[in-house]
Amino acid sequence: MKIKAVVFDAYGTLYDIQSVAAVTEEAFPGYGEIVTQIWRIKQLEYTWLRSLMRRYQDFSVITRESLAYTLRVLGLKSDPAAFERIMDKYLHLDLYPDAIAALAAMRDRKLAILSNGSPAMLNALVANSGLDRVLDATISVDSRRIFKPAPEAYTLIESTLGVAPAEVLFISSNPWDACGAKAFGLNVAWIERVTPEAMAQLCVRNDVVAPLTMFKAIRTQMDELGLAPDHRIRALSELPALVAGHESTK
Amino acid sequence: MKIKAVVFDAYGTLYDIQSVAAVTEEAFPGYGEIVTQIWRIKQLEYTWLRSLMRRYQDFSVITRESLAYTLRVLGLKSDPAAFERIMDKYLHLDLYPDAIAALAAMRDRKLAILSNGSPAMLNALVANSGLDRVLDATISVDSRRIFKPAPEAYTLIESTLGVAPAEVLFISSNPWDACGAKAFGLNVAWIERVTPEAMAQLCVRNDVVAPLTMFKAIRTQMDELGLAPDHRIRALSELPALVAGHESTK
Repeated sequence: MKIKAVVFDAYGTLYDIQSVAAVTEEAFPGYGEIVTQIWRIKQLEYTWLRSLMRRYQDFSVITRESLAYTLRVLGLKSDPAAFERIMDKYLHLDLYPDAIAALAAMRDRKLAILSNGSPAMLNALVANSGLDRVLDATISVDSRRIFKPAPEAYTLIESTLGVAPAEVLFISSNPWDACGAKAFGLNVAWIERVTPEAMAQLCVRNDVVAPLTMFKAIRTQMDELGLAPDHRIRALSELPALVAGHESTK
Repeated sequence: MKIKAVVFDAYGTLYDIQSVAAVTEEAFPGYGEIVTQIWRIKQLEYTWLRSLMRRYQDFSVITRESLAYTLRVLGLKSDPAAFERIMDKYLHLDLYPDAIAALAAMRDRKLAILSNGSPAMLNALVANSGLDRVLDATISVDSRRIFKPAPEAYTLIESTLGVAPAEVLFISSNPWDACGAKAFGLNVAWIERVTPEAMAQLCVRNDVVAPLTMFKAIRTQMDELGLAPDHRIRALSELPALVAGHESTK
């Protein structure tokens, strides 16, 4: 089957969400890493909980509320200007270094983002990083008022790009997102950014765990949800060959 | 408004889920606490993810799969007998010490559990702890094939007990569950087992975090979901007075 569209998750897949850590550390010296990790853990929890409760709010609201939760729990005073500086980083996240070259090498396909982000957040992020010049579409789940991994979110690929699920390759580094896309019927490549070997070496015993280690332990390893991605890759740079090879093997 | 039914969450509210830590430590010396915390974090994630993906499996499957995930990520070899011993503890969790007396003092109301647990798990747990003698009903979300905090789960209280939401007091120590019940329209008492002051004293900086501290930081403090419980209590023992007082004040 020919791949007609290559669709990417944004946060954690094209854009490095760990790149907020410098800003959080500057705002809260000594707490940057733990703020970064709890914030991201709660941000995703809130997308799932609000979706299940039928209390959708867009991702900018959820991102603010999860940051507010994090600072409150850690007992950190949140000066409004510092809060806004941290939030603003979400509009200027770093691209993974191999993102631009990988996208450029696949310009003979439709290229898009499908993200939980709100339209305003995504449009700013894509423009600020220059991806607006290579993407055919930036799709937000917002129009369906439910977050991934609900199937309604993934239907937006076909309704926006006019490409059937069997002709789409979806790429995510988020295991739950890769599983959700697979459950929906897309072809899925999962980016395994933390190998099992690296994870096992992080020495996660009872006594001492770095916040980033805890994050990795709960959010970077393939989940046990009865689903498996079609492809496991280690970096975006592997994608052009994978897409080309897809045609010859399927 | 008179409270005609008092309905409890099970795991973490009447039953101490931390009581699995002795069994996990025995099976995996040095890793009991981190296994316990990652297991619980992933167990709940999987209920939300499978609900959103429309890939329901009952709580016993999810409990197994989240334990399997935990052991794999930590690089722990799972001997099948040890795995089953850990799983079996879920049928013999410790009651919080004040649970029996609090329930006994409210026997003039309908008393029930509404839990994510499968019917088989809940029936065993309730029988093993003797709560079958005081509860009028043990309600599993299983018949709706979706987990809390989806509203479908909370509808089971009225359909099982015949008591309208406005006449139900729902009790949970899980912030997301308290919010879900409130969003649905129940009267809600949230058990705040870790106070903000205690949380702030846990010294959660970048460098060193105990797994239990990380669990507390993400799962014991009231969430920022735009909802607030009607009552905050510190222990089950406060409930009889709260229920009696509810009639005089509302």
